[in-house]
Amino acid sequence: MEYEKTVPVPSNMYVRVNHWKLKNFVAEVFEALNVPEKDAEIVSDNLVTADLRGIESHGVARLKRYVDGLVKGVVKARPHIKVLREGKVHALIDGDSGLGQVIGFKAMKLAIEKAKKNFFGVVGVRKSNHYGIAGYYALMALKEDLIGVSLTNSRPLVAHTGALKRTIGTNPIAVAVPTARDPPFVLDMATSIVPIGKIESYRRKGEEFTRGWGIHKNGEITTNPEEIFEGGALVPLGGLGEVLGGHKGYGLSVVVDVFSGILTGANWGAYVGATEGPEPSNVGHFFAAINVEAFISLEEFKEKMERLKFELKNSKLHPSFKKIWIHGEKSWLTMKTRIKKGIPVYRKTMEMMEAVAKEVGVKFPFKV
Amino acid sequence: MEYEKTVPVPSNMYVRVNHWKLKNFVAEVFEALNVPEKDAEIVSDNLVTADLRGIESHGVARLKRYVDGLVKGVVKARPHIKVLREGKVHALIDGDSGLGQVIGFKAMKLAIEKAKKNFFGVVGVRKSNHYGIAGYYALMALKEDLIGVSLTNSRPLVAHTGALKRTIGTNPIAVAVPTARDPPFVLDMATSIVPIGKIESYRRKGEEFTRGWGIHKNGEITTNPEEIFEGGALVPLGGLGEVLGGHKGYGLSVVVDVFSGILTGANWGAYVGATEGPEPSNVGHFFAAINVEAFISLEEFKEKMERLKFELKNSKLHPSFKKIWIHGEKSWLTMKTRIKKGIPVYRKTMEMMEAVAKEVGVKFPFKV
Repeated sequence: MEYEKTVPVPSNMYVRVNHWKLKNFVAEVFEALNVPEKDAEIVSDNLVTADLRGIESHGVARLKRYVDGLVKGVVKARPHIKVLREGKVHALIDGDSGLGQVIGFKAMKLAIEKAKKNFFGVVGVRKSNHYGIAGYYALMALKEDLIGVSLTNSRPLVAHTGALKRTIGTNPIAVAVPTARDPPFVLDMATSIVPIGKIESYRRKGEEFTRGWGIHKNGEITTNPEEIFEGGALVPLGGLGEVLGGHKGYGLSVVVDVFSGILTGANWGAYVGATEGPEPSNVGHFFAAINVEAFISLEEFKEKMERLKFELKNSKLHPSFKKIWIHGEKSWLTMKTRIKKGIPVYRKTMEMMEAVAKEVGVKFPFKV
Repeated sequence: MEYEKTVPVPSNMYVRVNHWKLKNFVAEVFEALNVPEKDAEIVSDNLVTADLRGIESHGVARLKRYVDGLVKGVVKARPHIKVLREGKVHALIDGDSGLGQVIGFKAMKLAIEKAKKNFFGVVGVRKSNHYGIAGYYALMALKEDLIGVSLTNSRPLVAHTGALKRTIGTNPIAVAVPTARDPPFVLDMATSIVPIGKIESYRRKGEEFTRGWGIHKNGEITTNPEEIFEGGALVPLGGLGEVLGGHKGYGLSVVVDVFSGILTGANWGAYVGATEGPEPSNVGHFFAAINVEAFISLEEFKEKMERLKFELKNSKLHPSFKKIWIHGEKSWLTMKTRIKKGIPVYRKTMEMMEAVAKEVGVKFPFKV
């Protein structure tokens, strides 16, 4: 089945790009900025995976801000990533202001190693940067048949319940769970109604967004993307106020910050910085990998997950819906489709990448 | 500051009851049903704590259904709770269809012991029953200066995104976090917009509830409590459909079920039973206790939590709000108030308790 979560419209706004070619180009950009080859490949794989999975808000469209961070020196190309504390099932890592994707990758690798040996792996990270999609690290655990959990704080973008200004991050929660058959269950969600990348997409399209996602700087609900960027804020999952549970989205966001920011010694709340500076962002992450065999056999677990998926998908349909989805299914289908057809990249993003190529002195291999 | 989250209105609908007296009475009821004294005290403390904290939907108002479960024998008064698997930081417990509160208490105790020795304690539970408020177990960890996490699945009450019927539980998430000063941070939330207990409260009051919380059996949004109980369903956090993030509430609910139900070998999804039978409910729980000193010192952690609380509370106010709350603050203030003033118990609940007292043969010590 050919399916894509999102495709830019109209069709003259984008070009289709082969994902390998895109990965190679992005890796070359990072290498040109003195990032070691292996690390450049990690970042590139992370960004292109976001595009493949239909989360283009977190894909190559954000290349420029990582480049800016490296150029300004607030993000280090060759950080000294250190393990500060370690036990059989846990570790605390200091990322030394490297690229969030590189630090996140190494931290989750460590969590996976521990989970394979001792059933559980729990790794906290301080002094990191924006690490791309949270789901990327949860998916790493999945490849090893482990449950993966990935949390991060982010620069303040959300006004918590009762607040007027941006006070907390969109602080995502990602959980990936092994299943007997594809697609695996992958929840990857911002704790705000939408992530800022979604507002950026509407800005690129020049369209208004759905009522309820964000507020104007004076507190009124807005549907205009520009007003979010002019002092406005996103709203927690559950909406403005408590009536539909906005305090729950706010609470989940704080919990993510407690684990990612407070517990790790990273920045937290309104103090988390941006990738492009001016100061090191000191983003914090929190990863966990869990071997289900601590509790039941992997085979039994995976078969039960299939039954759960089946029951959810085959529930009696609500008359307003055409189909029931499982988490991760849309992204998985989008990935399958884009591996074949290529990734649809906005012309604006292509132009940005061409300018980046020029800036760092690598060949731009695409025709816009 | 005298404050209560909720008080029944009008004032002739309730009587104020001393919390010790209420605890003693509830414990006597369970003892009369052959529950060992210590276990009866655990259940009673759990129910009355819910009332003290302003979550009366999970308090003594539910006494009758636990009694019914015990009387019918689907809930065992003297279960053989067994540890099926165990490691340094984890365990899997078979609750043998005992009272959920007793099993939950013992499971969290074990998680706490492990966390005190090895920084982390992770305990899964199968063959349990409804365990009251999720927050109760998270609060147990807090008393030991640990972060507490408590998850449970529940009988199906929520129609997941795209579904018409009740397919998944309200599957709550509770996280309690130590702070230097009271109140501690305690998130205790259903993954639906509201728990079923809130709809029950509106039914008791004979009032319509807020638009958006639930659907009629035909799928239409309803505000009538009766329609929820006549084949209708609750809606996930984020609402009906995906526009405001309903798929996120649905996803969180499934994650809670994966940890509580699938991973533990308990029932899951639509298969989770009710406390009052006809079959054993086989509810599953999942607990974690985390010693923050795995990462940073307890003192540093607690002081940072105070700073986080301070910053959140003192953010610039949205013009539509009078005050910013921290999670657990309302419940904490309600508890302080009710310890002094007594717990407001609905007359209907008093009548039910009086009938229960007669049924099991204990003295009813209150005047209605």
